[in-house]
Amino acid sequence: MNNFIFNNPVKLIFGKGQISRLSEEIPDGIKIMITYGGGSIKRNGVYDKVITALKKCNSDIIEFGGIEANPDYTTLMKAVKICKDENVDMILAVGGGSIIDGTKFIALASKYKGDDPWDILIKQAQVDDAIPFGTVLTLPATSSEMNNGGVVSRRETKDKYSFGSPLTYAKFSILDPEVIYSLPKRQIANGIVDIFAHTLEQYLTFDNKAMVMDRWAEGLLLTLIELAPKITKEDRSYDDCANYMLTGTMGLNGFISMGVVQDWATHMIGHELTAQKGLDHGQTLAIVYPGTMTVMRKEKKEKLLRYADKVWNITKGKDGSKDSDAIIDAVIEKTDEFFRSVGQKTRLSEYGIGQDTIDTIVSKFKSANWNIGENGIVTPSKVREILESRL
Amino acid sequence: MNNFIFNNPVKLIFGKGQISRLSEEIPDGIKIMITYGGGSIKRNGVYDKVITALKKCNSDIIEFGGIEANPDYTTLMKAVKICKDENVDMILAVGGGSIIDGTKFIALASKYKGDDPWDILIKQAQVDDAIPFGTVLTLPATSSEMNNGGVVSRRETKDKYSFGSPLTYAKFSILDPEVIYSLPKRQIANGIVDIFAHTLEQYLTFDNKAMVMDRWAEGLLLTLIELAPKITKEDRSYDDCANYMLTGTMGLNGFISMGVVQDWATHMIGHELTAQKGLDHGQTLAIVYPGTMTVMRKEKKEKLLRYADKVWNITKGKDGSKDSDAIIDAVIEKTDEFFRSVGQKTRLSEYGIGQDTIDTIVSKFKSANWNIGENGIVTPSKVREILESRL
Repeated sequence: MNNFIFNNPVKLIFGKGQISRLSEEIPDGIKIMITYGGGSIKRNGVYDKVITALKKCNSDIIEFGGIEANPDYTTLMKAVKICKDENVDMILAVGGGSIIDGTKFIALASKYKGDDPWDILIKQAQVDDAIPFGTVLTLPATSSEMNNGGVVSRRETKDKYSFGSPLTYAKFSILDPEVIYSLPKRQIANGIVDIFAHTLEQYLTFDNKAMVMDRWAEGLLLTLIELAPKITKEDRSYDDCANYMLTGTMGLNGFISMGVVQDWATHMIGHELTAQKGLDHGQTLAIVYPGTMTVMRKEKKEKLLRYADKVWNITKGKDGSKDSDAIIDAVIEKTDEFFRSVGQKTRLSEYGIGQDTIDTIVSKFKSANWNIGENGIVTPSKVREILESRL
Repeated sequence: MNNFIFNNPVKLIFGKGQISRLSEEIPDGIKIMITYGGGSIKRNGVYDKVITALKKCNSDIIEFGGIEANPDYTTLMKAVKICKDENVDMILAVGGGSIIDGTKFIALASKYKGDDPWDILIKQAQVDDAIPFGTVLTLPATSSEMNNGGVVSRRETKDKYSFGSPLTYAKFSILDPEVIYSLPKRQIANGIVDIFAHTLEQYLTFDNKAMVMDRWAEGLLLTLIELAPKITKEDRSYDDCANYMLTGTMGLNGFISMGVVQDWATHMIGHELTAQKGLDHGQTLAIVYPGTMTVMRKEKKEKLLRYADKVWNITKGKDGSKDSDAIIDAVIEKTDEFFRSVGQKTRLSEYGIGQDTIDTIVSKFKSANWNIGENGIVTPSKVREILESRL
């Protein structure tokens, strides 16, 4: 097991009716910016609950709606300007991972003293201060509500970069599972794959003898598999929504990454597919992950066999043999089937994506000299193999 | 699943050689009290590492050794006097759960403005301030290094009470698994049972539909079962020590209690056995838990069956029948065997404890009108049944 430091200060406020607790978390009489997306919060009642709570704290409210999925740098910089001009004291992100990621960037960039806030993304420029923020989560998947990372896109240059800082943990995050009742199937399908993939990125590496973390990662995967058929239907129970929401938060808040090796090659390849072709994040992961398993099967052999056994109860190949490769083939197929069972496509060709896009992505990895995955073992040529295996 | 709030601010610094990091966590030039126990830290080298690190921060060091297992109120109040007289800025607990629990009490009682600090224990008197403290853990088991609770005994009145405050989270806790190499078998045996019991108290209740928490609790139990035969031997590997240490911390830091019902009847009965007869905490739990399972089998039926299946792979009784009671009998016997396998006795008579002690304990529960366990279902007469089943 590796040495590690764990410190997650986020206050998680979880459960039915908890949005009203906002008024206990927000100081009285401050200037607060609410950030949100396309307006679904106005249709599902969350917006009204938030405003009611904020009025109790006599907040001076500025609204910034219209943050898109895969939040765009240009959009976020408009919010940064308002934060600076208006001296905003606090930001409240009301939405899913994109809104929260975007809010983290707004919080940092508003206090950035350098020339170009783009440097926060491409040069990991350090920022000494940030506007404090809280979140009301409306779409579980990314765990952004309980971690300090974010991803920002720049559509004009087809870039997508991640960032993080000790200053970008939410002061509090309110998770009311009732917001899940009304989620469309596509968002649920993306969420399931995203949470599943987050967990795999911290689990399906070479074996690192992190016994608790392995068991906990398997616990999240097994929970998702058990929930998937129920949560993808329209008629969801409260407990299923609550368990799904909690699984999303636990997938990427550091609770399963203590002392482990991490991969993230699939995510980085997926980000490029989103940047080039506009696919949803979850859609890209459903395509790429079975490819990563196929191409990196030698390096991940021990863990793939454990994943087959503990998560899918697969201990022999489809031909009945105990051969490792046959077992690994079976579990890759099972993973692919699982993604399809929640409504995801798992092949590039299903989105009309072909060799030209693969070439573009591989060139980008090559020119940036990116070797990704645990220990940098996923070279640009491995990226090509992975994507070509998913045509 | 129940509503919950989770907020654990402790900075966990985990791994080989991490004690030297103390110098980065302690402000320069402060007056610091080191609290410890009987002096094992002077024999195993931890003391020297701590002093070396503190000297780097130019600390003005006050030592307070001699805190006993099940820390005593009278001892702790001597430290409180020194903290007040000397205006101690920070405390560093170097030890196991007893030292850290005691340190939490010292930290609170030193700032208590009421007449009698005993009220913190028996009246849950509120305290507004506490001396900040960090910990260097030398004996994994209680998770005191990453929670805000503590237990203090008063031998003169045979009392043992718990307490907790938002102010009694450590600022940081340093966990170097290498301290486990030299631990005596008795402490390992107590630790294993203690961690196992902590986990059961948050898991073996009525079913609360907390899927992730159930899986994570099972993950800790399975890890302990896998580690037990290796960690109870003298020749322990680093990875086994590291996994054991992390399991202890994760057992009672709130990570497996989100939205769940909790029991704690076994612990409360065990505390009385320690108060009356001086048994180690772990020893009491090994005796009482099989009794709690036996007597509360109806209320805990669903979870006992799940525990049998997921943790012990027991799906039928010893007679081969699928009868619930037969399965539950088998898993109670298995749990008893597990505790014995690590070197614990599991019967009161093995310690020469008989009916008179049971009578004393039950009278105490009756006169205090204590109904314990989830929803207060463990009445004093159930306590009698539980203890009598363990004669």
